[in-house]
Amino acid sequence: MILLVHGDREYLREPGDELHTDLGVVEIPEDVESGDTLETHLGEAFRARELRGPDLFNHLERTGAPMMPRDIGLVIGHTGASAGDRVLDAGTGTGILAAYLGRLGAEVTTYEQDAEFAEVARDNMAVAGVDDTVEVRTGDITEEIDVLADGEPFDLLTLDTEDAPEVVADAADLLAYGGYLAVYSPFVENSRASVEAAEAAGLADIETVETIQRELTVDDRGTRPSTAGVGHTGYLTFARR
Amino acid sequence: MILLVHGDREYLREPGDELHTDLGVVEIPEDVESGDTLETHLGEAFRARELRGPDLFNHLERTGAPMMPRDIGLVIGHTGASAGDRVLDAGTGTGILAAYLGRLGAEVTTYEQDAEFAEVARDNMAVAGVDDTVEVRTGDITEEIDVLADGEPFDLLTLDTEDAPEVVADAADLLAYGGYLAVYSPFVENSRASVEAAEAAGLADIETVETIQRELTVDDRGTRPSTAGVGHTGYLTFARR
Amino acid sequence: MILLVHGDREYLREPGDELHTDLGVVEIPEDVESGDTLETHLGEAFRARELRGPDLFNHLERTGAPMMPRDIGLVIGHTGASAGDRVLDAGTGTGILAAYLGRLGAEVTTYEQDAEFAEVARDNMAVAGVDDTVEVRTGDITEEIDVLADGEPFDLLTLDTEDAPEVVADAADLLAYGGYLAVYSPFVENSRASVEAAEAAGLADIETVETIQRELTVDDRGTRPSTAGVGHTGYLTFARR
Amino acid sequence: MILLVHGDREYLREPGDELHTDLGVVEIPEDVESGDTLETHLGEAFRARELRGPDLFNHLERTGAPMMPRDIGLVIGHTGASAGDRVLDAGTGTGILAAYLGRLGAEVTTYEQDAEFAEVARDNMAVAGVDDTVEVRTGDITEEIDVLADGEPFDLLTLDTEDAPEVVADAADLLAYGGYLAVYSPFVENSRASVEAAEAAGLADIETVETIQRELTVDDRGTRPSTAGVGHTGYLTFARR
Repeated sequence: MILLVHGDREYLREPGDELHTDLGVVEIPEDVESGDTLETHLGEAFRARELRGPDLFNHLERTGAPMMPRDIGLVIGHTGASAGDRVLDAGTGTGILAAYLGRLGAEVTTYEQDAEFAEVARDNMAVAGVDDTVEVRTGDITEEIDVLADGEPFDLLTLDTEDAPEVVADAADLLAYGGYLAVYSPFVENSRASVEAAEAAGLADIETVETIQRELTVDDRGTRPSTAGVGHTGYLTFARR
Repeated sequence: MILLVHGDREYLREPGDELHTDLGVVEIPEDVESGDTLETHLGEAFRARELRGPDLFNHLERTGAPMMPRDIGLVIGHTGASAGDRVLDAGTGTGILAAYLGRLGAEVTTYEQDAEFAEVARDNMAVAGVDDTVEVRTGDITEEIDVLADGEPFDLLTLDTEDAPEVVADAADLLAYGGYLAVYSPFVENSRASVEAAEAAGLADIETVETIQRELTVDDRGTRPSTAGVGHTGYLTFARR
Repeated sequence: MILLVHGDREYLREPGDELHTDLGVVEIPEDVESGDTLETHLGEAFRARELRGPDLFNHLERTGAPMMPRDIGLVIGHTGASAGDRVLDAGTGTGILAAYLGRLGAEVTTYEQDAEFAEVARDNMAVAGVDDTVEVRTGDITEEIDVLADGEPFDLLTLDTEDAPEVVADAADLLAYGGYLAVYSPFVENSRASVEAAEAAGLADIETVETIQRELTVDDRGTRPSTAGVGHTGYLTFARR
Repeated sequence: MILLVHGDREYLREPGDELHTDLGVVEIPEDVESGDTLETHLGEAFRARELRGPDLFNHLERTGAPMMPRDIGLVIGHTGASAGDRVLDAGTGTGILAAYLGRLGAEVTTYEQDAEFAEVARDNMAVAGVDDTVEVRTGDITEEIDVLADGEPFDLLTLDTEDAPEVVADAADLLAYGGYLAVYSPFVENSRASVEAAEAAGLADIETVETIQRELTVDDRGTRPSTAGVGHTGYLTFARR
């Protein structure tokens, strides 16, 4: 899939397809490359652009509020997620975290309880170009833990689901030695429960962080933090086996 | 390189080497794997652990204050850095950002003006296992821009150097269409200068964010943000071609 | 002046007046007291309530964005503003800071350059019940500094005006020994200029603080910082003679 | 009481006393005034300075961590505490909040369970010059609520005690119509309990705020938030009858 961009307008299309808009029709070559300029039959120019991570926020189908770029980034920064990592993820949701992890070369297995959401997430992985490395499983991870624990251990366990504390309790059986756990939760109580479960599970380096991010506004009158404010997204709890 | 871990103690060694400590001598097999338990001649156990990103903060040689995991993560989250990206980086410093980017499969060219620091950074890339994908060049990026601009464009330009605004001015010539710029600076004035340079260079989606991160403390009396406080690290300015 | 309250509706009236609304007519006794219940001729109840500081935000006429309760509070907390203080204030604006200071027993002289705004501020002081202790002067404080410096010194100098740094330069001549300066500014550059002016003026205990305030949301799902976010208001620079 | 100041050194003394230091002996006149310069018999100069609110943090005897100027200020800003207010306060602790409120002309009744702490607080009120308007009672406020509720209502109820939620439950019986409640607590769970008690008590305008305050560092290299960080103090819960 590739984006066709004209000013603020972006359209996601397959190479080989046609794009029909009020600006005219564009035939998209099979061998279109990022940066190519394509002209409509009315002479308007579109520019082809490969999707990068941040584009996923605009072009994946959402089945809920996706994790934000900053939180995805913090998960990666605090756990060192990298190419070759085996990742176990639950609740997939829109799948943006899974897609980011897939795009940096990790092999991801992700659980989504809602079958329709899982189907959307599979399509999203194709759009993100990671359908070969991210496997979206329909199901409840808490029911699969024994099976998962018997398999090859994971380098990273990422949880964005209400029953995270229940999974954290078994994290030591799921993680490789030195592997990381990351739990995202909007709520204090749930984060606390994950911390307590991580302590009970004997994990190390347990910490919960909250992150406040503000935009800096630059104009002729001066520089200042934005008056708009950025609200809370979620706490992130990290731990290591 | 692999870590040998005993309680809070961690030693970085080559497979095939010996580790001598007060706990006795360990012979490290050439084929040691993460998770293996090795015993000293005194019967004490060490466990072998592969380095992950966060380990780099403890085991790379520092030539200055390295960028923190959260800021590295935010760069990755906001720019979608991923496997296969061509990255141009300047002020290498300790090289942790470059190492993180290398570990997620990007090809990184990084400039460090100080020849000794560059040498240390090269060793650090070997420790991080990315010496084949991260090239540390000794030199001043501002003097190389014309040459760099004539080559293949970059997907990501990351700057942690005082003269970032000067480089930002030429970012459009260095970046591929859709590619991202990320500038790290502790100071308001320098961040503002980067924003103004990005505007002058015609880049899109320009924003500067500041990030406040606090640890949540969980104990028997209750849950609360840490009284310890987390200080400012730097502003991050992002823009896109 | 007193408030007549019915559910979410609040009306500001003089004792002795009548209140006409769709709920009927209320005659307000001359000797009405906070807490009294008054009935309309249609049998609807209003309750009389004395104004407190926070009511001023709803019931003073605004001539611009007033300083927020938190910032007013921080000025009071950091400077120890108290009964009997002599306060010099500039740009009055809506006058809420001046009114708060008057209500805690300080004698306030405040400058407003805009004659119409000054007139509104005088009315506002009457509503706040501090017209006898807060004098609103129409004029430019920077032109009055020599005269002010020749008079009795002030315990507190509060500035919410773009040319604050110019006034800060003369703060040592205006303040009593031990007296405090507080400057409110939305912008980094302006705050920095005030700090530099305070240093040049030989003031002590100079500091600029920025304050981020978030609401904690409590509901059945859990407790968390508000997703709504609270934006930047202003930096506060404090110093002492 | 008055401060004698020489450089960074400050001594608290009664007018009429002598101050003996390595700089010599100063006789303090009965009629000493803030700003007077006094010389020791060795010719060293001290300057007399009246205490202001912020001086209380250095010169009151502490029986625990006192509430910080910012939190005291926020209580005043959010509740409009002012001259003439009747305030009910519990746990006194060092008594700085009570002293601040007394200094802005409020009449304060404050409860401290620990008899020794209460004695120290009484001395502190004398130092702060508010022993005539702040009454420190030794006792447990939760056992006095019925008696207090039968008396004249309070304009402000300020609580910095673990059993705040229990007192909040009766706040409607203690407060005058339109009066405010302010609860200070370091912990999420305790703050949540106060919110729930305030809701059950039918109070209005219930909100809990957390405040993050950072210092802005100004030097030759630029302007930035302090790297030192400012930690969490407490949540403030406000409500109104």
